[in-house]
Amino acid sequence: MNHEYYMKIAINEAKKGIGKVNPNPLVGAVIVKNGKIISKGYHEYYGGRHAEIVAIENAKNKGIDIKNSTMYVTLEPCSHYGKTPPCAHRLVKEGFKEVYIGMLDPNPLVNGKGKKILEDASIKVEYGILEDKIKELNEIFITYISKKRPFIALKFAMTLDGYIATKDYDSKWISNEKSRKLVHKFRNYYSSILIGANTLIIDNPKLTCRIKNGRNPIRIILDKNGLFENKNLNIFNEEGKNIIFTEKNIIDIPKNTEIIRETDIFEIINILYNKGIDSILVEGGASILSLFLESKIVDKMHVFYAPKILGNGISPFNNITIDSIRNSINFKPIKNMKIDDNIYWELKPCLQE
Amino acid sequence: MNHEYYMKIAINEAKKGIGKVNPNPLVGAVIVKNGKIISKGYHEYYGGRHAEIVAIENAKNKGIDIKNSTMYVTLEPCSHYGKTPPCAHRLVKEGFKEVYIGMLDPNPLVNGKGKKILEDASIKVEYGILEDKIKELNEIFITYISKKRPFIALKFAMTLDGYIATKDYDSKWISNEKSRKLVHKFRNYYSSILIGANTLIIDNPKLTCRIKNGRNPIRIILDKNGLFENKNLNIFNEEGKNIIFTEKNIIDIPKNTEIIRETDIFEIINILYNKGIDSILVEGGASILSLFLESKIVDKMHVFYAPKILGNGISPFNNITIDSIRNSINFKPIKNMKIDDNIYWELKPCLQE
Repeated sequence: MNHEYYMKIAINEAKKGIGKVNPNPLVGAVIVKNGKIISKGYHEYYGGRHAEIVAIENAKNKGIDIKNSTMYVTLEPCSHYGKTPPCAHRLVKEGFKEVYIGMLDPNPLVNGKGKKILEDASIKVEYGILEDKIKELNEIFITYISKKRPFIALKFAMTLDGYIATKDYDSKWISNEKSRKLVHKFRNYYSSILIGANTLIIDNPKLTCRIKNGRNPIRIILDKNGLFENKNLNIFNEEGKNIIFTEKNIIDIPKNTEIIRETDIFEIINILYNKGIDSILVEGGASILSLFLESKIVDKMHVFYAPKILGNGISPFNNITIDSIRNSINFKPIKNMKIDDNIYWELKPCLQE
Repeated sequence: MNHEYYMKIAINEAKKGIGKVNPNPLVGAVIVKNGKIISKGYHEYYGGRHAEIVAIENAKNKGIDIKNSTMYVTLEPCSHYGKTPPCAHRLVKEGFKEVYIGMLDPNPLVNGKGKKILEDASIKVEYGILEDKIKELNEIFITYISKKRPFIALKFAMTLDGYIATKDYDSKWISNEKSRKLVHKFRNYYSSILIGANTLIIDNPKLTCRIKNGRNPIRIILDKNGLFENKNLNIFNEEGKNIIFTEKNIIDIPKNTEIIRETDIFEIINILYNKGIDSILVEGGASILSLFLESKIVDKMHVFYAPKILGNGISPFNNITIDSIRNSINFKPIKNMKIDDNIYWELKPCLQE
């Protein structure tokens, strides 16, 4: 078996932490001895043990001798005292012979330091194994660390002719059931979900994550004029937290809700970053989608097309008008998929900020 | 080898006639003896020999004895004297032992008659082999015969957010080069191409088929007000024929052009049917696409999405407004395909007329 084989298994371990570790990275580790996998581990929840430690302790609990074995770990072992002691030291102490790393720490301040600790202890180290895959796996973490803001994904479902709703805001349902199930997976993947006041009032959504073992994302509402005030909306009765950004002075604060008096999008994004929110799924409506696109803070788009025609209706980015094809805002497709009679398209912006 | 194997080869033969046989069907034939293919043939051009005869004569020209052999033919051998003597009689005369038919003649008046001639001569006959594939292959012919009107396909390329052009009618180019190449294949497949006056005047397209060995479709223009008059447009300088429907009395008739004073869409369709035009590729603009959709005479849609955002622009069906998702005009996807950074979607209407 080659390095990529074991790293793939470490990646699959890492994925078990989806929805539980934010704003930490997803990390998986595999311990191999004489070509046999003797232990595995992953970063299980925010503040919990690191993947390397879990794998080591899983082995020890079973009485397995890990001395002189090889570790495959998706992310560079840490070198600093955070919530846990540095993993690099532990790997040295346990007598690992070789360590294969997927990607180095994206934080330029610590990048390479864990690797150096291992090398100084004469452990054979290689890195960059399945690096692209692992960067994709940790796109949220990397953006959060390097751009110092949450990763922002837009999601919208359109009719074949490009409408997210009828002229009268009817949107139930454009996409099919299976597509809507996928959206619940996104809600588990991203740590927060954001909508505008119109969508909140007209659709009165729950914004919960309805998958097994999923957790509700933090619900963020941009409601400049405080339209939510004194309304008994579903989000106030669901488990999980709401954050409402408004300029209105709100007296009666609803249950589970924090009110923040801010309406500038960049300030809002910064406040969310400082609260440790590493990712936002923006679900609409059109003025909110337009706002993020215009502000050039979009990292990904999740787009659904349904085989229906409305003729006229609400366009996803109707607050924007581009005057020529040459000046259109371009994206780079990264995935497309048939979902029953819907088409799913995943794209990244062509130009990053 | 089973029947489907040989029928597939007959289908591939039939396809060689694409763009050349309209309004005749695409037909292919394979002659098999002792499990070996000894001859093949296809209907090569409108008015030409039928596929069965081509296969028989190909064999004879090579001095091959076809007595007691088996024929696979995609369409029921004809039983009537048309441009050629009936094929069923010829098959009897040549002493075929077995005949496997893809689909029976879609014309209810002759359906089964060719088969009966064969059976009466004690030839073993089976039909319905790969019938669905063959019906798809002959969708144009079947529509033309059974609905007594041309097969109508809409084609349009949209930005990700559903626009076929900017507000100022800029549309060059929304789709990528490879997608536009596919459109030229469509122009060879369908016998005519139809656009409205706005598209004619603003885009001044050539509407030619730019593929090797392709033929230009007949160019049909719906120009109620005669906006083309006295304009030197590309279509008047290209090889092939133009038909312009208008209510204006035109004095100076351009080269290669027939003027017909009719503006009712159903009358127009009927005139084209009577001219032997079996298929129309409708390429826009929005009012023309809307007209066909509203008139419920759409048999297929060829849709392209490009990863570009315009915010606002021209929607493909902007003359139509549906008031609720429940009442939207529904289609059934039959194919989807990634074409470089574009998505191609092929759909059929859910409810036929």
